[in-house]
Amino acid sequence: MDKKEKIVIIGGVACGPKAASRIKRLNPEAEVTILEKGELLSYAGCGLPFYISGEVESHNELMATPTGVVRDTHFFKMVKDINVENHTLVKSVDREQKIVHAVRLDTGDTAEFPYDSLVLAVGSTNPNLPIEGTELNGVSQLRTVEDARRIRNESGSLKGKNAVIIGAGLIGLEVTEAFKKQGMNITMIEMLDSAMGQMLDPEMAYHLHNELKSNGVTLKLNESAAKIEGDDRGCVKSVVTDKGTYPADIVLISVGVRPNTDLAEQMGLELGKSRAIKVYPDMRTSDPNIYAGGDCVENRNLITGGPIYAPMGSTANKHGRIIADNICGKESQFKGVIGTAICKVFNCNVARTGLTEKMAKQAGYDYITVLTPAPDKAHFLASAKMIIIKLIVDKKTEKLLGAQIVGPGDVAKRMDMAVANIISNDSVTDIAQYDLAYAPPFSPALDNIITAAHIAENKLSGFSQSYTPAQVQEKIDNGDDFILLDVRSPQEFEQMRLDDPRVKLIPLGKLRSCLDELPRDKEIVPFCKISLRGYEAEQILRGKGYTKVKYLDGGIVCWPYKKTVN
Amino acid sequence: MDKKEKIVIIGGVACGPKAASRIKRLNPEAEVTILEKGELLSYAGCGLPFYISGEVESHNELMATPTGVVRDTHFFKMVKDINVENHTLVKSVDREQKIVHAVRLDTGDTAEFPYDSLVLAVGSTNPNLPIEGTELNGVSQLRTVEDARRIRNESGSLKGKNAVIIGAGLIGLEVTEAFKKQGMNITMIEMLDSAMGQMLDPEMAYHLHNELKSNGVTLKLNESAAKIEGDDRGCVKSVVTDKGTYPADIVLISVGVRPNTDLAEQMGLELGKSRAIKVYPDMRTSDPNIYAGGDCVENRNLITGGPIYAPMGSTANKHGRIIADNICGKESQFKGVIGTAICKVFNCNVARTGLTEKMAKQAGYDYITVLTPAPDKAHFLASAKMIIIKLIVDKKTEKLLGAQIVGPGDVAKRMDMAVANIISNDSVTDIAQYDLAYAPPFSPALDNIITAAHIAENKLSGFSQSYTPAQVQEKIDNGDDFILLDVRSPQEFEQMRLDDPRVKLIPLGKLRSCLDELPRDKEIVPFCKISLRGYEAEQILRGKGYTKVKYLDGGIVCWPYKKTVN
Repeated sequence: MDKKEKIVIIGGVACGPKAASRIKRLNPEAEVTILEKGELLSYAGCGLPFYISGEVESHNELMATPTGVVRDTHFFKMVKDINVENHTLVKSVDREQKIVHAVRLDTGDTAEFPYDSLVLAVGSTNPNLPIEGTELNGVSQLRTVEDARRIRNESGSLKGKNAVIIGAGLIGLEVTEAFKKQGMNITMIEMLDSAMGQMLDPEMAYHLHNELKSNGVTLKLNESAAKIEGDDRGCVKSVVTDKGTYPADIVLISVGVRPNTDLAEQMGLELGKSRAIKVYPDMRTSDPNIYAGGDCVENRNLITGGPIYAPMGSTANKHGRIIADNICGKESQFKGVIGTAICKVFNCNVARTGLTEKMAKQAGYDYITVLTPAPDKAHFLASAKMIIIKLIVDKKTEKLLGAQIVGPGDVAKRMDMAVANIISNDSVTDIAQYDLAYAPPFSPALDNIITAAHIAENKLSGFSQSYTPAQVQEKIDNGDDFILLDVRSPQEFEQMRLDDPRVKLIPLGKLRSCLDELPRDKEIVPFCKISLRGYEAEQILRGKGYTKVKYLDGGIVCWPYKKTVN
Repeated sequence: MDKKEKIVIIGGVACGPKAASRIKRLNPEAEVTILEKGELLSYAGCGLPFYISGEVESHNELMATPTGVVRDTHFFKMVKDINVENHTLVKSVDREQKIVHAVRLDTGDTAEFPYDSLVLAVGSTNPNLPIEGTELNGVSQLRTVEDARRIRNESGSLKGKNAVIIGAGLIGLEVTEAFKKQGMNITMIEMLDSAMGQMLDPEMAYHLHNELKSNGVTLKLNESAAKIEGDDRGCVKSVVTDKGTYPADIVLISVGVRPNTDLAEQMGLELGKSRAIKVYPDMRTSDPNIYAGGDCVENRNLITGGPIYAPMGSTANKHGRIIADNICGKESQFKGVIGTAICKVFNCNVARTGLTEKMAKQAGYDYITVLTPAPDKAHFLASAKMIIIKLIVDKKTEKLLGAQIVGPGDVAKRMDMAVANIISNDSVTDIAQYDLAYAPPFSPALDNIITAAHIAENKLSGFSQSYTPAQVQEKIDNGDDFILLDVRSPQEFEQMRLDDPRVKLIPLGKLRSCLDELPRDKEIVPFCKISLRGYEAEQILRGKGYTKVKYLDGGIVCWPYKKTVN
């Protein structure tokens, strides 16, 4: 490439500055310009909820390097030799002449930026919620540092007041905790039947819902905001849904994001099926001189092979690096994503990747599932905390289709191993051979993800069979005649139990001597606290010639339906 | 297989009970007997230091299932239908007749146990330290629950007294923290030049040593215990080394373990190069009717292809499962290990896998190294803590040869991803495509292990070049003439710096305008706090035509030699 090549980058948050910095490292003579309509550059958008909570004191910290240097326009010029034009809004792009036309927001002057390569890193926007009252004072979205500063000031003066959060997605959940730290009363309104919407299966979302409720959040599922009401000073007063009215001093709208494609559409660039900008593995758009990355593009789903819109700060950074490589003549490809996400909600960590069971079913996969709760460290340590792993595994390829992990313990480590396993295109049973780092403060002797892989192997081979909680509940609802065989101790039974006439208590140690109490012609569903003993009971009964036996996945700990707790 | 097959398992700690339990699940009609010379079964040997520290209150907790059921002989019989013969010492095995000859330690009676398949899960022993005084009261090793109970009672009454720990391996380090929690003064004596001996490279061990010292542990490296002295009541008084004498009220000897092969040798079974029992991938010994697993066997090193003795509770459990599968006719292979280990030492976590740089060099690999410190979470969160990743990568295959990670932050997650990458036989650069779970409370937008993979890629392609701290120190020691270019700010320089006449301070933002201060014929070694700016400086200088530039890996944070701190 010509060493004096001109590169123009539109967008100064994540992908843009990453691409710019690496371009200057790969080709120090390149002329790199970032056009940004706002004031601030390269801020950690994902950190905004933590600025609202007060965990991050100054918004400057969101814009600093790990060593504390603030990334302002002066920093970019002096340290990286990158021209940053902020307060500069792009109006149009002449792809023939390769010129970007922009306007200076401060002065109204127009400006032109010729390019050899152009990078669109224009991010995402929030869709307008098509209801009355979104313009009222106290109603916010959370996109920019300015949004966060406004909310923080408001919430600071609103201690003990009422917040309504519309939308229980990742941002909504993070802000819930931030608001709670500021001492607010919170109502969360979600039109779907679960928080994190399509990202979790019901028995996993159950634990997330419990965590919200036990932290005093009023969670309203299957409920849609209809309008936002204000007082005569133009300040928000309440949120009205299809089911009720909730007083509100502050309203946060967090109903997801959509790719910012206005400019791309105006330029005639191709969009993907998800309506985000279509890019090839080298991050080029349909115009080979124009690259795009970050929240404005569509990714390839490595599990389905199809398109996926999954905006994520981590992915935007990866895009930026690959764009820089290709602009500088170093061939580089972005393989795709699998929809990994993680969220801390009070003391519960929730992570997911790939397909949910529901998605796998819809896509026609023949699959098995694993549901296994266990402490995240050696169980004899007081610091050990529970995590619950759900795996969805393709029966044909024995590969992971998806994973979900929830609980107060270390879910991130196990999720990242599931991700590594999927991206490596290995079988789920290969996880059993991982020589993981074991010592009691870090994991059980067999790490939770290895145990999950073992269970998957037992089920894939047909050696062990089980029902999911949903399947058992369905059988109950259908009025099926079967035995719910609780193999725990009488003490455990006393503390927590399923109250159903089908339940029969035979502690595991007595099972072999009590077989005459168990008819051979009736289906038996053994379970315990976590269904390790349930699985043992399954094998004992099979060994004794019982054929209609399937244990209950995850035991009573993972049972998301009615149970009696004393 | 014959359903009434008799399986005898020698050893009741980790591998043995695991194998027994799974055999009974796979074949409920099998007759399974565990022979154990001690009283206790299936205890978590790795938990003993946490029992000494008081974190685990009762030794019963070390023998319980995750749901709190104690695994005694009654438990094994009633729940698992496994016969446990404890206090039973095996004297010999007649391989021709397939009979185990044992003696009841309580009564002195002999007993015979015929088998179809035999499993040796006889663990490891501590080598005798060939010095005077190891028999004195107050001198212990830490192998059994009994050892731990004795030490805990002693240390409980020894608050404020002196402990000498001989050997700074994993157990010695864990007990150090346990003793400190009991309020003791600790001297640690290690004959090698570093704690965790051969497991870490010097610049990584440096941080471990610092952590021990800053917690008040007197660490004596390159020092050998010569004798242990007692008083006239037979109680320990002091430990004498080749360099000094240290008062001691309690002495823990933790100089590593060796495989327990006495029985195997007596039986004429083949040993491996490491002198542990040789097993094939199906865990059979040289006698196809006899399996072995756990701490008594040799493993295959998946990186070198050669043998490795790496006893680990996690591996023992994996062995047990694979032994059970093969005994029950389900073909199953154990691939091998890569020498992963992890240890919590006060507030520092230390993990390692594969080859150290020293081992890689000795094995003749052509390799690059990466040394990168960074916060383990989004840097703007107060909960973010530093971790330092070192990678050793084969230049030819671009695969990880080894990884070491230290620091107060979450090292386990990154180590387990490195392990997954190695076991999957992927290239180190594949890590850059992992769609890891990102949110600020869990990682930076680009996870530390991805950044490390990016640095590896830059070095493998020759785009970036660097020196390790050891190489730079060697150049200094050799009196080489070069410039140590510190590109940090004057404030950072004031707080901490290298005091060497070669040091020149030019903040990165001024570098482009100060090139006339930098001769082109002299070698330049730029660095900063963590060498991100050092790497930027390398690229700026290369871009300006400087050819003799290599940045200092890891910056001043990772510099393990002399530095001035104000």
